[in-house]
Amino acid sequence: MEANVYAKDCAGRQVLDRIGDTWSVLIVCSLADGALRYTELAQRIAGVSPKMLTQTLRALERDGLVTRTVHAVVPPRVDYELTVLGRSLLGLVGGLLDWAETHITDVVEARDAYDSRDLP
Amino acid sequence: MEANVYAKDCAGRQVLDRIGDTWSVLIVCSLADGALRYTELAQRIAGVSPKMLTQTLRALERDGLVTRTVHAVVPPRVDYELTVLGRSLLGLVGGLLDWAETHITDVVEARDAYDSRDLP
Repeated sequence: MEANVYAKDCAGRQVLDRIGDTWSVLIVCSLADGALRYTELAQRIAGVSPKMLTQTLRALERDGLVTRTVHAVVPPRVDYELTVLGRSLLGLVGGLLDWAETHITDVVEARDAYDSRDLP
Repeated sequence: MEANVYAKDCAGRQVLDRIGDTWSVLIVCSLADGALRYTELAQRIAGVSPKMLTQTLRALERDGLVTRTVHAVVPPRVDYELTVLGRSLLGLVGGLLDWAETHITDVVEARDAYDSRDLP
């Protein structure tokens, strides 16, 4: 069966849900320069709850985008790193992130105009 | 203030939430070739509920990515079209959609391997 995300039951929609998710985008972009520990990710992505960070990392690992490596040291150290598949996403999700940062003003102005328009 | 989506209260995160959302991606890509009516969008994006389609179109309109034009005909006709800002997203969200379709097998295989691994 050919992939077609416009079709109702295409698994590509679940893939799209994962890769377009804001926390996924922030995690993937954070790992662009190499492996990070859990605590480093939590610091870099300000405001992410431990639950959401753990849940998103697990989903990214399950989907083959991130590896989780536990180092047998005391205290235990856990590193997260992009896989080759994860790295292939970097350009796209980095582009989304740049677009969001670049166009904040455009979007906020559009929202203000929308919210203050005269309704018939 | 410089935009930084890694910061907790950066409005860029809301922008990222909007542009990475699966329904937004499917709608923006559907409008790549020009304006469509509501019913055409509903047909193209199989399985989207009327509530979700209406809600997402309204959010895209509010964020300045899509225009909504009501034509004074009987029965009334409503067209949706990308704005210049919306069109500037096409390459990125089209890329996400292509990535999702291309890598379904990789992701599904990774999930199967993850789900069937031996846990300690």
